Amino acid sequence: MTIRVVCYGLGPIGLGIARLVVSRPEYAVVGAIDIDSTKVGRDLGELLGDMPFGVKVHSDVSAVVAETRPDVVLHATGSVLSQVAPQLNELLATGTNVISTCEELSYPWTAQPQLAAELDAAARRRGVTLLGTGVNPGYVMDSLPLALTAPCVVVRSVRVTRIVDVAQRRVPLQRKVGVGITRKEFAQRVQQGRIGHVGLPESLHMVATSLRWQLERFESSIEPVIAKSPFMTEMGRVEAGSVTGIHQTARGFISGREVLFLDLWMYFDAPDPQDTIDIDGDPPIRMSIEGGVPGDIATAAIVVNAIPSILRATPGLGSMADIPVVHFP
Amino acid sequence: MTIRVVCYGLGPIGLGIARLVVSRPEYAVVGAIDIDSTKVGRDLGELLGDMPFGVKVHSDVSAVVAETRPDVVLHATGSVLSQVAPQLNELLATGTNVISTCEELSYPWTAQPQLAAELDAAARRRGVTLLGTGVNPGYVMDSLPLALTAPCVVVRSVRVTRIVDVAQRRVPLQRKVGVGITRKEFAQRVQQGRIGHVGLPESLHMVATSLRWQLERFESSIEPVIAKSPFMTEMGRVEAGSVTGIHQTARGFISGREVLFLDLWMYFDAPDPQDTIDIDGDPPIRMSIEGGVPGDIATAAIVVNAIPSILRATPGLGSMADIPVVHFP
Repeated sequence: MTIRVVCYGLGPIGLGIARLVVSRPEYAVVGAIDIDSTKVGRDLGELLGDMPFGVKVHSDVSAVVAETRPDVVLHATGSVLSQVAPQLNELLATGTNVISTCEELSYPWTAQPQLAAELDAAARRRGVTLLGTGVNPGYVMDSLPLALTAPCVVVRSVRVTRIVDVAQRRVPLQRKVGVGITRKEFAQRVQQGRIGHVGLPESLHMVATSLRWQLERFESSIEPVIAKSPFMTEMGRVEAGSVTGIHQTARGFISGREVLFLDLWMYFDAPDPQDTIDIDGDPPIRMSIEGGVPGDIATAAIVVNAIPSILRATPGLGSMADIPVVHFP
Repeated sequence: MTIRVVCYGLGPIGLGIARLVVSRPEYAVVGAIDIDSTKVGRDLGELLGDMPFGVKVHSDVSAVVAETRPDVVLHATGSVLSQVAPQLNELLATGTNVISTCEELSYPWTAQPQLAAELDAAARRRGVTLLGTGVNPGYVMDSLPLALTAPCVVVRSVRVTRIVDVAQRRVPLQRKVGVGITRKEFAQRVQQGRIGHVGLPESLHMVATSLRWQLERFESSIEPVIAKSPFMTEMGRVEAGSVTGIHQTARGFISGREVLFLDLWMYFDAPDPQDTIDIDGDPPIRMSIEGGVPGDIATAAIVVNAIPSILRATPGLGSMADIPVVHFP
């Protein structure tokens, strides 16, 4: 039986998701939603650089859902939960399952408990499931480390390091992490909340709560990585002393002891990109993924691969830590 | 709320599970079952080398379950499904959830479809869940590789290598893999089904079916690893030319192409013990766990850590590929 999918939000990530859904025989894209007036009225196939296939982009969410009756809506419009919550509520009210790339939705129970409870109630009311996921948050720094604790009888601490070489990635990601800007500009963007990975606290809380750890305190930091010598990028020359990327951390403490450390490096020419997960437990588990899990393609994959899991999940606001294990396809 | 647990089968693995359950505040061991007349009537605490704590071992399964009304029975009596199926059916008929270390139960749908369907029906009839799990099968060579496909949009092949140095493990495991026996004795034991890891085909089928791969053919092999020079063990001296352990493989093919390769080495002084998972996909994922996940402690951990997952799972015969992700605690 074909599973009916609506794609909501057709920016780069949303289009990547749509492209993947279209390629899968078990799914049919039955509707497409975006508010961008340059996209509304166009065929989704065209936006994907393909032939039109008869799915026009609309901006009226409820009308699309009422007409197409999807099994699941794949939502990719933003990172900030308070901004996308009205969209999610509108979707849930129609009685459809929703998977969203909204980073703050991946585990909102600790940072935004009221919003989490409202969305959970809205989903339960209609017997559907809502999930926020992606490669990070959602996988590399939270649900994958959790899955690696399965063989442990004791877990004393969890440390995750993700090193991304943005030189191997697309230019928009290089811009996003501040390649080539000054320290001062970096500091300004941090203050304005305009730079940095969203979701590290959510990953921290997903891991802590799932391990039944009550953190007494948590800290996060964001710092620039600074170029030691000049180098060339597709965007031009970057001088020594300029920013070459970001280093972000989140740490959780119990009784003064650091029990959780999420360490994220995203910078130009980062040597030895990788994901490592180090569980100090009985037994200890030390895992590494050579080269690391790439970002954008993996986020689209995880969103689409999560569809079977959320169709079988308990109604409500789920997380990657409690739905059936997500795997290809 | 305390979760009520009955431990069924009090051999080394069953006692390891019981010891772990006793150590967890959220669980109460309310009953213990074994047919061994040297254990029946004794207190479980004593069998664990501790003080008695008022749980006597009984051999009458239905009576124990009727009296103690457990939320879950942890079952560890054997590897061969046809032999333990009557025990599992008796448990399911009482309306209790069951987690078993029976290797062939980890994914019996392909090799023993009728038995699988009967157990599934028995569990559904009573609205409970039955799960077979452990470190292998159940985790390292099946559900963990599956979890690592989550970021993939394409998976072309999966290769898992597990190298266990039995010199670092207990003597019974060394005996189990044939350390010190002759090639001839090894061949005889293979013929009699008295040597070798049980569960490699189950792991193969769990991965293949979950990836929606229809294997046209699968192969398995078991060979001795032979000592090149003499060495000493706790059991005595082993001569060059004797057996030092086993090498087992399972391979799955589609259109003549090998798409799945499970490669298991368990031998004395194996250099560089590790678990590696190599997914040829988009993106490719290459993971390794330094030293590998140890066997017995991990099996006990996974069985106990799976309790919350099966209490939330859909009724029926589940597998590690479809229940909510198992993690500590």
